[in-house]
Amino acid sequence: PDRKAIHDKRHREAELTKPAGSLGRLEEISEWLAAWTGRPPAVNRPMVVVFAGNHGVAQKGVSAFPPEVTAQMAANFAAGGAAINQICATFDLGLKVFDLALEVPTADFTEGPAMDERTCVATMAYGMEALAGEPDLLIIGEMGIGNTTVAAAMSAALFGGDPKTWVGRGTGNDAEAMARKLEAVEKGLALHGPHISDPLEVLRRLGGRELAAMAGAILAARTQRVPVIVDGYVATAAAAVLWKMDPGALDHCLFGHVSAEPGHIRALEAMGKIPLLALGMRLGEGTGAALAAAIVKAAARCHSGMATFEQAGVAEKAE
Amino acid sequence: PDRKAIHDKRHREAELTKPAGSLGRLEEISEWLAAWTGRPPAVNRPMVVVFAGNHGVAQKGVSAFPPEVTAQMAANFAAGGAAINQICATFDLGLKVFDLALEVPTADFTEGPAMDERTCVATMAYGMEALAGEPDLLIIGEMGIGNTTVAAAMSAALFGGDPKTWVGRGTGNDAEAMARKLEAVEKGLALHGPHISDPLEVLRRLGGRELAAMAGAILAARTQRVPVIVDGYVATAAAAVLWKMDPGALDHCLFGHVSAEPGHIRALEAMGKIPLLALGMRLGEGTGAALAAAIVKAAARCHSGMATFEQAGVAEKAE
Repeated sequence: PDRKAIHDKRHREAELTKPAGSLGRLEEISEWLAAWTGRPPAVNRPMVVVFAGNHGVAQKGVSAFPPEVTAQMAANFAAGGAAINQICATFDLGLKVFDLALEVPTADFTEGPAMDERTCVATMAYGMEALAGEPDLLIIGEMGIGNTTVAAAMSAALFGGDPKTWVGRGTGNDAEAMARKLEAVEKGLALHGPHISDPLEVLRRLGGRELAAMAGAILAARTQRVPVIVDGYVATAAAAVLWKMDPGALDHCLFGHVSAEPGHIRALEAMGKIPLLALGMRLGEGTGAALAAAIVKAAARCHSGMATFEQAGVAEKAE
Repeated sequence: PDRKAIHDKRHREAELTKPAGSLGRLEEISEWLAAWTGRPPAVNRPMVVVFAGNHGVAQKGVSAFPPEVTAQMAANFAAGGAAINQICATFDLGLKVFDLALEVPTADFTEGPAMDERTCVATMAYGMEALAGEPDLLIIGEMGIGNTTVAAAMSAALFGGDPKTWVGRGTGNDAEAMARKLEAVEKGLALHGPHISDPLEVLRRLGGRELAAMAGAILAARTQRVPVIVDGYVATAAAAVLWKMDPGALDHCLFGHVSAEPGHIRALEAMGKIPLLALGMRLGEGTGAALAAAIVKAAARCHSGMATFEQAGVAEKAE
């Protein structure tokens, strides 16, 4: 974080025509923007990046939708027909979709590691391409049939606790699919348990391409001074790999919302992160984070656009 | 509510390319828009109206800011320098400010009724002018030094309970101002207590011009099929007058946020209303409701703009 930018932001904040602290989290957000960009709070080039991947474990019937939906939805993103397209259009957010070898699902983690080392590292590096367009606010989302199963396995591996508490209904599982999902998670944990003290091994063995790419994008954003808004349960599982390596690794990240997937709030609480919105969403695609980006835009504009007490001729608080 | 519009909305919702229910409150919001406008969900002319009034009770030293700040802030709204101006600019919301006889404060409610009957009724009628620009979404806010004292007195009168639980720090009171504020509320309740079984008498005796105008605007919106977003503690106190007369009177209203003022969540809970946002704000001006309007715009656009499963060639959930 940039101490000078924080200092300047606080100095101006105190002069704006409002009672001190009355914009609540908006004031925290504008400070966060200043801290990580090293300049006055502004959002000029917000960019949503959606990473799409396919998962071997989907063949175990862990989702309510068939695996071909991942590619179909990627086409829907390209055609402008998905929820994330509408939210980006509403708030003037850029949108980039990265298809991650959709025709080659990862290996089924109940039978072996999801990815070999080369694939995992290369996909993390590829995720860093999210910064290529030089966004000044990066919003991270994903698409991948089966990936709440992946997020559940990773969350259980990273945070511990009863695997059952990490497994939710995803896109809308019935009881049978829920049982298969839990079984897959338990099997994956049993198989890889002895080898996952390294968080990157959690990502490689139990994760998937879009999770590796998101982790890479979050890392790259840090070095390039770009604040990040993380979306839901799956995006948070990717971020948690970095947090597990270094609890300060996500200080440049805002958690945009808490999803309806029950493991999400548990993961956020484990990391001490307070989500901005709670709207009962569970779609992914970056939709919750993109809504949060609207609030971030407003926070920046309040800070930069408001008049000072002196400019407006407004009397200050009596001391 | 329009049954046909609700039916049509649900029919289309089920065909959109996402798991059923996965947009959470966004799906409730688009249904609410359809229900109260009688057409497919859309936000084409959102309008923020800010009513400003002055209060006799402010002379009792109940606020951290002097009463002249109300008019100074009204000038700041006109010049585009306030927080609400920035939020409206961020989300393309119209903004209209109504100055309500700022040079003539209401009477001090610790000594007599704040308004006579004619002033109260005429101001409610004037508030109905908020609909003159034919908005299709009305966002209601206020400005008035001393008006959290008014809201506290009204909330205590309408909902009961220990007056202390309705009194908060407002713009940032110190302990002395807090004591004066509580004393004023208790004095007002003691003086008017025998005469306030009629909610409109609560508004007239303990309220203020901007509260009467907000109540009028909310009423008029109902008859003109315009959904309303209510802002914080003060706006909610105005709305509560209508709720107390008829618990269904606010069904066309969304409560945009819960403010940091401690009485606000109590009032919302008493009416069974669940706020959309919780950002720790306590500024008024319609700022919390205007942020909520951004979410409402996105909800409408998701519903109207998304592709159906058939259009996008996306496989539906296996049954």
